Amino acid sequence: MQPITTEIVSRTIIKRPADSYKGTYGRVMLIGGNQNFGGAIIMAATAATYSGAGLVTVATDPTNFTSLHAQLPEAMVMDYHQTDALLQLLAGMDVIVIGPGLGTDTVADQLLSTVLTATHAPQRLVLDGSALTLLAQHSRALPATDIVVTPHQMEWQRLSGIAIKDQTPTANHDAQQRLGVTAVVKAHRTTVYTNERVWFNPGGTPAMATGGMGDTLAGMIGGFVGQFDNFTNAILSAVYLHSAIADDLAATRYVVLPHQISAQIPRYMHRFSQETPAES
Amino acid sequence: MQPITTEIVSRTIIKRPADSYKGTYGRVMLIGGNQNFGGAIIMAATAATYSGAGLVTVATDPTNFTSLHAQLPEAMVMDYHQTDALLQLLAGMDVIVIGPGLGTDTVADQLLSTVLTATHAPQRLVLDGSALTLLAQHSRALPATDIVVTPHQMEWQRLSGIAIKDQTPTANHDAQQRLGVTAVVKAHRTTVYTNERVWFNPGGTPAMATGGMGDTLAGMIGGFVGQFDNFTNAILSAVYLHSAIADDLAATRYVVLPHQISAQIPRYMHRFSQETPAES
Amino acid sequence: MQPITTEIVSRTIIKRPADSYKGTYGRVMLIGGNQNFGGAIIMAATAATYSGAGLVTVATDPTNFTSLHAQLPEAMVMDYHQTDALLQLLAGMDVIVIGPGLGTDTVADQLLSTVLTATHAPQRLVLDGSALTLLAQHSRALPATDIVVTPHQMEWQRLSGIAIKDQTPTANHDAQQRLGVTAVVKAHRTTVYTNERVWFNPGGTPAMATGGMGDTLAGMIGGFVGQFDNFTNAILSAVYLHSAIADDLAATRYVVLPHQISAQIPRYMHRFSQETPAES
Amino acid sequence: MQPITTEIVSRTIIKRPADSYKGTYGRVMLIGGNQNFGGAIIMAATAATYSGAGLVTVATDPTNFTSLHAQLPEAMVMDYHQTDALLQLLAGMDVIVIGPGLGTDTVADQLLSTVLTATHAPQRLVLDGSALTLLAQHSRALPATDIVVTPHQMEWQRLSGIAIKDQTPTANHDAQQRLGVTAVVKAHRTTVYTNERVWFNPGGTPAMATGGMGDTLAGMIGGFVGQFDNFTNAILSAVYLHSAIADDLAATRYVVLPHQISAQIPRYMHRFSQETPAES
Repeated sequence: MQPITTEIVSRTIIKRPADSYKGTYGRVMLIGGNQNFGGAIIMAATAATYSGAGLVTVATDPTNFTSLHAQLPEAMVMDYHQTDALLQLLAGMDVIVIGPGLGTDTVADQLLSTVLTATHAPQRLVLDGSALTLLAQHSRALPATDIVVTPHQMEWQRLSGIAIKDQTPTANHDAQQRLGVTAVVKAHRTTVYTNERVWFNPGGTPAMATGGMGDTLAGMIGGFVGQFDNFTNAILSAVYLHSAIADDLAATRYVVLPHQISAQIPRYMHRFSQETPAES
Repeated sequence: MQPITTEIVSRTIIKRPADSYKGTYGRVMLIGGNQNFGGAIIMAATAATYSGAGLVTVATDPTNFTSLHAQLPEAMVMDYHQTDALLQLLAGMDVIVIGPGLGTDTVADQLLSTVLTATHAPQRLVLDGSALTLLAQHSRALPATDIVVTPHQMEWQRLSGIAIKDQTPTANHDAQQRLGVTAVVKAHRTTVYTNERVWFNPGGTPAMATGGMGDTLAGMIGGFVGQFDNFTNAILSAVYLHSAIADDLAATRYVVLPHQISAQIPRYMHRFSQETPAES
Repeated sequence: MQPITTEIVSRTIIKRPADSYKGTYGRVMLIGGNQNFGGAIIMAATAATYSGAGLVTVATDPTNFTSLHAQLPEAMVMDYHQTDALLQLLAGMDVIVIGPGLGTDTVADQLLSTVLTATHAPQRLVLDGSALTLLAQHSRALPATDIVVTPHQMEWQRLSGIAIKDQTPTANHDAQQRLGVTAVVKAHRTTVYTNERVWFNPGGTPAMATGGMGDTLAGMIGGFVGQFDNFTNAILSAVYLHSAIADDLAATRYVVLPHQISAQIPRYMHRFSQETPAES
Repeated sequence: MQPITTEIVSRTIIKRPADSYKGTYGRVMLIGGNQNFGGAIIMAATAATYSGAGLVTVATDPTNFTSLHAQLPEAMVMDYHQTDALLQLLAGMDVIVIGPGLGTDTVADQLLSTVLTATHAPQRLVLDGSALTLLAQHSRALPATDIVVTPHQMEWQRLSGIAIKDQTPTANHDAQQRLGVTAVVKAHRTTVYTNERVWFNPGGTPAMATGGMGDTLAGMIGGFVGQFDNFTNAILSAVYLHSAIADDLAATRYVVLPHQISAQIPRYMHRFSQETPAES
């Protein structure tokens, strides 16, 4: 098990080429937010946008359109019940994030199936929150492309079959190999499992123990994997920055709210983009 | 009668244990906000969230979903007319706050009855605003658990039967003993009555004399009793910080708005968490 | 014609008595905001709230409830089509502001009639925007109480019958005497006409020449006349501070937005409340 | 090809005359924002308002009213399906901006036709986004008045028939002459084509490569051409400031969000209004 280092983050978040446009930085669709959990998809979309995603589209229950636009006019919206329109838009996406505030009813189940069927390489897929609960309920074929799951420990238990008390790095890595997807297991010390290696995140604070933190991380990962080629490093960098920002904010705050993290992402990314990492 | 001291606050707001998660810090449901008074439940939920509550759910009239999510995506929402769903969610809550913007119509009356019946120890209950007016209208059995009421002087008159001019500490304490619940009587100098003792709050400013201040205090108390074991000290600390923040803001402002207090809660909690109280 | 002085403002905005509550600082109802001009009543209500009004209720088209609450949870709302509920609430108000974004259709006309009939001394009345256009269309009896009108020059032309080019202080004062209400005539240099005197406002900047400035002033006047006994001085102080804040903001801004003024009101009121005016 | 200079900007953004009112600074209507792209018209209207437009009206799908007003109460709204009301309002406008988030369905097509027919000199017209895609689909008569189009390279390809790789200054200028409208071709280095000359914008940063940047520029141009007589210089100044602000924000941010640019416009305009340009 090795730590995520600032060197990885600096190597990943490179200076943007001068001659680029919004398409260069990823078309990201976020799917989630039912009539009760609309805030989750708002927080995820906010994180993706502030992470530098070129174009952000939110597929959600229409009840969430107005509250989303009231704070994030930068995102586009669509009704996630409109399957045909969704499929058409999905085809043009670089990244799909599904799960924040999705819930586990039949609409949610149907959406997950649609996404798992429609997604094709080189599209990248982030599965979070309720999508993981649904995934654990019955086995489904996963598309052959870059996939990352972002469970907290209970969701990981459902997904991997490993009880929380038995979630050792070795057991988790074995499960990750079986599942064949990158796994970010969120805990006091978050660990990341790839086919090659086990990483742990050195940062994190109990000030982050509040609703919406996971949605924010999922959105950040969506934004990062849409911009940075190396899938693993993009994920590791998002995990690192998410808690590094929270650690700094927690130096003066008892609790850190998710939207406060998102607001800081552009400054932290800039800082790392200015550092020249040692040759690797 | 003795003052709430900074020593109590420092002793209550302890550093968070590193190995904790959002469930550690309380599942808080706030119930209120009809079609006219939606702002009250928004302010209460904002205060609870910024107080560090782990998970905040707002049961309200659906007309308030969007305005709530537009400023507080961190909270989940539900339609308070859906009694079955409400009962199901209530069962998993650590704290229930009912009253801000609830109104006094039959829907409100029904909701209060539902909550009083469904709540069981060790769940904690905060009764505020319209819930107190309803409570004063006809006698109801209160659940045998930690309960705090937060009346202003007129609501206290209705609840205790003591006219405002006769609300002396002794008379109030007698009434509190009869009612068997902790009572926070909001006034120029707020007093707190527990089974053991009478406290007064040293802070407070007329700059707080504006709509929504009470809703904010109710939300703070909800957040604090969801995190800190000692029920009395959690309440005293919320009362103290609520006015301490206002006092500081009033040093440069003629009127202090409720949302400005909520925004400062995490910083003030952090400050007190860093202080080592004298051994007691 | 004499200038509004800082001495008047300091004398008006007194330190709040320690033993006071929100009822002490005025129950203010603002009526306006149709389906097209909802922003106007939002800006007026924001100004009233930040001016320190104890309790603010907005009677408006329901389409504006959510956008209002999304930025001003401190205000209560009601559907202005519900005449009976409106009349009931009106009876308990200290101040009524009617006009911002009201429009001039039959609903608006009806609302103005209702207000003019229902208002009684010592309630105070602020007539602004569309309410003045309606007032100019046909003569109506005004209630015998403190009334202030806040026309810009074209509205004043309609109301007084004096063409803009002929709006000299003397002509305006004559018209004010005929109308029997205090008149704030908004222009490059705003002038205020009372039964006794003609005042001019020394401040003001072309950076204020943007939509919503008048709505903000109407809300400030509503907040001030709800708190300060001397009707004329309350109005003069609101007029003075409104432009004094704008002048300061314009030192670094080409255009000043209405909400930026409202955000500063509590600080400016505090500053003047700290000054001891010379004995008068 | 010559650079847009600070001298042009200083010459254009003059100090406002003391004796002016909101009508002096332009009545600007922005048309766009369907049920999926409402954020675009919000961002454009925000930019127009912060650019100092005297009065801003947004004609959009009603689904966008609330999210717009929640962040920009300064704007008025209307349902863009109401053709008669739209035509009536259009007649009184100084500037019409059509396109941000408009989409390309029949409603959008109809709106563009209505605007092109109804607009008359000296009204000024800004055609952006979807309006340009529609314009490229079949030829339409353009009104004989000041018109500016603001395509990105792909939209310019559709409009001019020049493939992106062939979009040289000379080819673009030839196309502009054929079209007879001022053209702002947005790219890594934005170029502006007028009947007389070809300009290039010296600023710009890849931190701007995010959704909504173009909508913001369209709104700024709308605000500027409503205030400043020289049509070309107003456009050049908007193009210059839009990227100058972004460049400054990008000194500390990896990505710059559109609303962050709008928030800075009044300060930058003020700065340029204070400089006395050399005699020209």
